[in-house]
Amino acid sequence: MNPNYVRIFDTSLRDGEQAPGASMTSAEKLEVARALSRLGVDVIEAGFPAASPDDLAAVQSIAAEVGQGVLEGRPQFEPPIICGLARCTPKDIEAAWNGVKGAKHPRIHTFLASSDIHLKHKLRMSREEMKARAVEMVTFAHSLCADIEFSPEDAGRSDPEFLYDLLGAVIKAGATTLNIPDTVGYTMPDEFGALIAGIIANTPGAKDVIISVHCHDDLGLAVANSLAGLRAGARQAECTINGIGERAGNASLEEIVMGLRTRHDKIGLETGIDPKQLVRVSKLISRCTRYPVPPNKAIIGANAFAHESGIHQDGMIKNAQTYEIMRPEDVGAAQTLLVLGKHSGRNAFSKRLAELGCALDGEALNKAFEEFKKLADRKKNVLDADLIALSSDERIPETAFWALESLQVVCGTTNQPMATVRLRDPDGRSHTQASIGTGPVDAAYKAIDAIVKMDVKLLEFGISSVTEGIDALAEASVRVRHGDNRSSHGVAADTDIVVASAKAYISSINHVLSRQSGSRVRNPQRQDVNPEVPLNP
Amino acid sequence: MNPNYVRIFDTSLRDGEQAPGASMTSAEKLEVARALSRLGVDVIEAGFPAASPDDLAAVQSIAAEVGQGVLEGRPQFEPPIICGLARCTPKDIEAAWNGVKGAKHPRIHTFLASSDIHLKHKLRMSREEMKARAVEMVTFAHSLCADIEFSPEDAGRSDPEFLYDLLGAVIKAGATTLNIPDTVGYTMPDEFGALIAGIIANTPGAKDVIISVHCHDDLGLAVANSLAGLRAGARQAECTINGIGERAGNASLEEIVMGLRTRHDKIGLETGIDPKQLVRVSKLISRCTRYPVPPNKAIIGANAFAHESGIHQDGMIKNAQTYEIMRPEDVGAAQTLLVLGKHSGRNAFSKRLAELGCALDGEALNKAFEEFKKLADRKKNVLDADLIALSSDERIPETAFWALESLQVVCGTTNQPMATVRLRDPDGRSHTQASIGTGPVDAAYKAIDAIVKMDVKLLEFGISSVTEGIDALAEASVRVRHGDNRSSHGVAADTDIVVASAKAYISSINHVLSRQSGSRVRNPQRQDVNPEVPLNP
Repeated sequence: MNPNYVRIFDTSLRDGEQAPGASMTSAEKLEVARALSRLGVDVIEAGFPAASPDDLAAVQSIAAEVGQGVLEGRPQFEPPIICGLARCTPKDIEAAWNGVKGAKHPRIHTFLASSDIHLKHKLRMSREEMKARAVEMVTFAHSLCADIEFSPEDAGRSDPEFLYDLLGAVIKAGATTLNIPDTVGYTMPDEFGALIAGIIANTPGAKDVIISVHCHDDLGLAVANSLAGLRAGARQAECTINGIGERAGNASLEEIVMGLRTRHDKIGLETGIDPKQLVRVSKLISRCTRYPVPPNKAIIGANAFAHESGIHQDGMIKNAQTYEIMRPEDVGAAQTLLVLGKHSGRNAFSKRLAELGCALDGEALNKAFEEFKKLADRKKNVLDADLIALSSDERIPETAFWALESLQVVCGTTNQPMATVRLRDPDGRSHTQASIGTGPVDAAYKAIDAIVKMDVKLLEFGISSVTEGIDALAEASVRVRHGDNRSSHGVAADTDIVVASAKAYISSINHVLSRQSGSRVRNPQRQDVNPEVPLNP
Repeated sequence: MNPNYVRIFDTSLRDGEQAPGASMTSAEKLEVARALSRLGVDVIEAGFPAASPDDLAAVQSIAAEVGQGVLEGRPQFEPPIICGLARCTPKDIEAAWNGVKGAKHPRIHTFLASSDIHLKHKLRMSREEMKARAVEMVTFAHSLCADIEFSPEDAGRSDPEFLYDLLGAVIKAGATTLNIPDTVGYTMPDEFGALIAGIIANTPGAKDVIISVHCHDDLGLAVANSLAGLRAGARQAECTINGIGERAGNASLEEIVMGLRTRHDKIGLETGIDPKQLVRVSKLISRCTRYPVPPNKAIIGANAFAHESGIHQDGMIKNAQTYEIMRPEDVGAAQTLLVLGKHSGRNAFSKRLAELGCALDGEALNKAFEEFKKLADRKKNVLDADLIALSSDERIPETAFWALESLQVVCGTTNQPMATVRLRDPDGRSHTQASIGTGPVDAAYKAIDAIVKMDVKLLEFGISSVTEGIDALAEASVRVRHGDNRSSHGVAADTDIVVASAKAYISSINHVLSRQSGSRVRNPQRQDVNPEVPLNP
């Protein structure tokens, strides 16, 4: 193996999905996993199987499909490693193994906090007890699976001497990757680099395993810390697309990859990522998690390559080198091309959706194609972004409890805004209500509330145009809370923003209903607040 | 002076405003300057006075007001330095001096590229010619103003030996601050730190001046590079709120300030910033530039402190230290409190607006108060965000070419969407048009187009709720292009999203019209594309 090869471990589906409100459906997770595989990631952390039967099923389906074969467009010869997270308990490790064992290259990733502050306040364990537990559980995991990753949580604030001893012991117990997380995003790049260098120099057996970095962005230093760790000898970087994740998020995959590529002269490390897919995968993650990408985000933001030059193109073409250290086409940020028009056929439509990572079939494909034809009648140029928005309505079939049959709205400055809504219930019956409101969306939502009779609180509401032009599709997204539950979201596209808003609200209500069947352990790192899995027997 | 004091030089109004579509009106710039002063910044780069008469006037008004006195809430005893940017030409330097001379502490900041790639392709000068020009122009600037900052553009890619020689010469010529820009965001933290250390060690006279860092975020390393430069001995950091700026933007003020504060144990440097104002100033900049703050942005994002714990509060309260390195209240991110209700008076309203950095008076205050009363009738809790949104309509009086008199809309799934619009023209005459469209916004925009008769292309359209709840105000923002001009934006808030959308579109058209009177040199660093200011005589 090339000693300068850096493994890219994507945790968008695990640490990324832990961001508030970023939860994805199983169908979305599978779609993201396919896109990550095409991008060329080495390891996909597909989830936390012990969290709930749904999470387990999502990891299993990713292992069975994405973990078994090489997808079209994937730059690497082997399918990615599929990894499942587990706390240091037999039950979690068994669940993780059940999740990933269907993959060609399965991995179990287990973790236990090693900093004194976590040991004292969270685990209520001594260092020796913690080390014994880690060794015992790595040994157990290794009896199931050859590829074992271990993380000492909050390593950034742990005593390095204890880490050397602990990590040496888990290597002996069978760990093959040691991941060093800066869980709270506290370290400076030189500190984190020194921590990694110290671990490599002082841990017995460290040279026979892969050292990994996992950095959080609380002080805006996640990428700098990751690069410092890699330059100090780590050869795996854990990261997420768009830097999503809890709080300020994780290190951005795209920034790590392009930093290594752009400064290969200085750093001399390589990855297996196809950077031309970065923008497309970024957009997919943004859609699935409802987390917008700000225009000034490095690498993938809409302005990352937008010199004020839109107007001054010749000047920039003449001198591009003076201001550009990467080219937009390197990361797939070239102008979206016209792909389909009203005369495009069903095959072209279906093929393009698949290329975009939004494959549909059967009834869902029929419905999306119908919508596409309607849109092509109204809009001259149907672009990739339009297709992605259109297909999204059809990709969450499991949540169709309520459906919009019709909506009529009157509003403006001179009228009292008024909406009449007809919904179909799960048994196929129609219900109609009219309501006034402070605006058309308020009126429509009140009419929907009168039919659905659930206590739903609207937390966020937003609409954005999908492509340029006044006739463009608009996409509405809403985030709601029902009772004390976690927030749920809904998203829908239409050329009529009031219709899109109503559909998005109904979608969020369906999302609430679909989740009421099962509850999850949301955050595996919050062991303290999850009494049903006792960690201190 | 405390040798560990870092001057915070905010360039949101200059480099930040160069971000595509982020241009601000003079009224907005003054408001931002007030907020920056209250925040405690040491230097406000207020603009590039040679760009246009409007830019000059904006800098002058900031110098005369914010540069003259200490505002309520400002944590420092003196008003901030007001700085104006100038290329190395007498005309630019004179314009900069005219801009800033009304301040108590004026500064001229002049720059010239020093990297071989810029010298060869952009300036077509030799190193010696460049140095002679820099010395000549710093000497001239110093004859006008005691406080002179000089930047060798693209220093990150310049020959360090040439920099030592060049900077030594400009110090002799009178420069008091030497700013080292990583113009293309290319360096790694250790490289940039070494560059700064080298300059301090090898430049004659460097110990008698302030060395400054100015980093861009193309590889996601702007903050890490800035901190590395400060640790190497720089004592001024140039940065922007929210990291706005060209391409991927500049280093984020809030991340630099909180990095220094949170890791004071290691770094030992201080600033004069009041961090409790960070979130509020961030929101103001986001509104004025129409650049959203992503939820996972470090320090100021909505989730920066949102542990998945919304639900699990006890656990987190018990153990907050285990996952928190900063407290939300440190940066002013505590829950927005209810501030005003329907019985609140006009004084309370006006005072709260002023505290929020949105002071209004005269007719604008009357109109905003009327809108507030109407909103308080519909919405139980009027929050700060509502007030900011409400007042925004009244803060751009100079652009009222067209005004919305009335709007009527019918739409939904069963109707052809239709809108009737009545606008008042600049002479007070009313015009009415009706139109159908693919949705209510399309119909309204087509009716507006039929009245206004300008060739306007819609680039972006978005709506977001200002606060929680179905009855909340929604804010619409649009970005348009007219002819070959730069994009213009408009923003408006209403409880009716179609009304807000129509007002925002009219506002963007007014923005286009208000700019047609004068043209600007948009980007001072693009000397190559600005033939009217010859740099190579």
